[in-house]
Amino acid sequence: MHELQERIKHEGQNLGRGILKVDGFINHQVDADLMMKAGSELGRRLAHVDATKVLTAEISGIAPALTTALALHVPVVYARKSKPITMPEQVYRDTAPSHTKGKMVELLVSPEVLQATDRVLIVDDFLATGQTIAALARIVQASGATVVGIGTVIEKTFEGGRELLSAQLSVPIESLVVIADMSNGQIVFG
Amino acid sequence: MHELQERIKHEGQNLGRGILKVDGFINHQVDADLMMKAGSELGRRLAHVDATKVLTAEISGIAPALTTALALHVPVVYARKSKPITMPEQVYRDTAPSHTKGKMVELLVSPEVLQATDRVLIVDDFLATGQTIAALARIVQASGATVVGIGTVIEKTFEGGRELLSAQLSVPIESLVVIADMSNGQIVFG
Repeated sequence: MHELQERIKHEGQNLGRGILKVDGFINHQVDADLMMKAGSELGRRLAHVDATKVLTAEISGIAPALTTALALHVPVVYARKSKPITMPEQVYRDTAPSHTKGKMVELLVSPEVLQATDRVLIVDDFLATGQTIAALARIVQASGATVVGIGTVIEKTFEGGRELLSAQLSVPIESLVVIADMSNGQIVFG
Repeated sequence: MHELQERIKHEGQNLGRGILKVDGFINHQVDADLMMKAGSELGRRLAHVDATKVLTAEISGIAPALTTALALHVPVVYARKSKPITMPEQVYRDTAPSHTKGKMVELLVSPEVLQATDRVLIVDDFLATGQTIAALARIVQASGATVVGIGTVIEKTFEGGRELLSAQLSVPIESLVVIADMSNGQIVFG
């Protein structure tokens, strides 16, 4: 997606250790119209998987997952990282290491929002190590529902997430912008 | 907004102590199309304030704030509750008591995403005590920007938020559904 790549080229910052700062338009301030274009493009590329639901993890997955769900006209579920008072006692629960927080985070989904008949498209802002998406996929499998596709806004291929997920799931994986290298302060597109 | 009120009537649950469970369509699973209608309606009612930016608090404010921003074609900023590695050292910071978590939460906004020239529309899922919105308004004021309006999806008038905010800010406050009473297990619309 050319427009998104141009924004990353001009406004993204390589903070080192694989951290890409895009919080001026992706994950603190969100360029709403650009995010709608990103969701529409993910929806277009993944329409053929016939998803009944989009699943993401709070917080920064919410914007791209919502715009993809808007494009596909299906509901979106965001896994919570802490349990709100409104969530039932028994929930689907898994954990994943957070790249930017340096610790394990919990992912919680209410059984009320995942049915065994659901065909689930997992969407997130980044595909890096793939650990968060793998944890979401385990939650889908625990519910009896089916993972039918994965869509992300930015993929960092050098962190191996695609290999991890491809080894576990036979589903299409789509990313709108691919970054192949961030060593030595560079941002090299793939 | 009739469609939203009907959904609350049929699927909302009064959990007691003013807690309204709407996590099947508002704040865990989100009915994307309904949320787009809600954002469009908030955008329509508040178009006249000429906002340059929408501001909300993560997590459950993100969906209505993003759809309002889509309707108005402006960026949306979500205040973070913990500091990501991508945020600069010096940030705007305030605190508000969380109704559903029973503790104080921090709200953090990077100075990079609020300019003194910004006209800020604050959007959240609920208007209850108004404390979170008041904290967001203090952050806007600290940045030198101007709060020009407040929009929420569901207002619980019996918690006094509108009075609190009206005493502090002379701006339009719009809510799509008003709940006047939740005592004795009821959900009474206003």
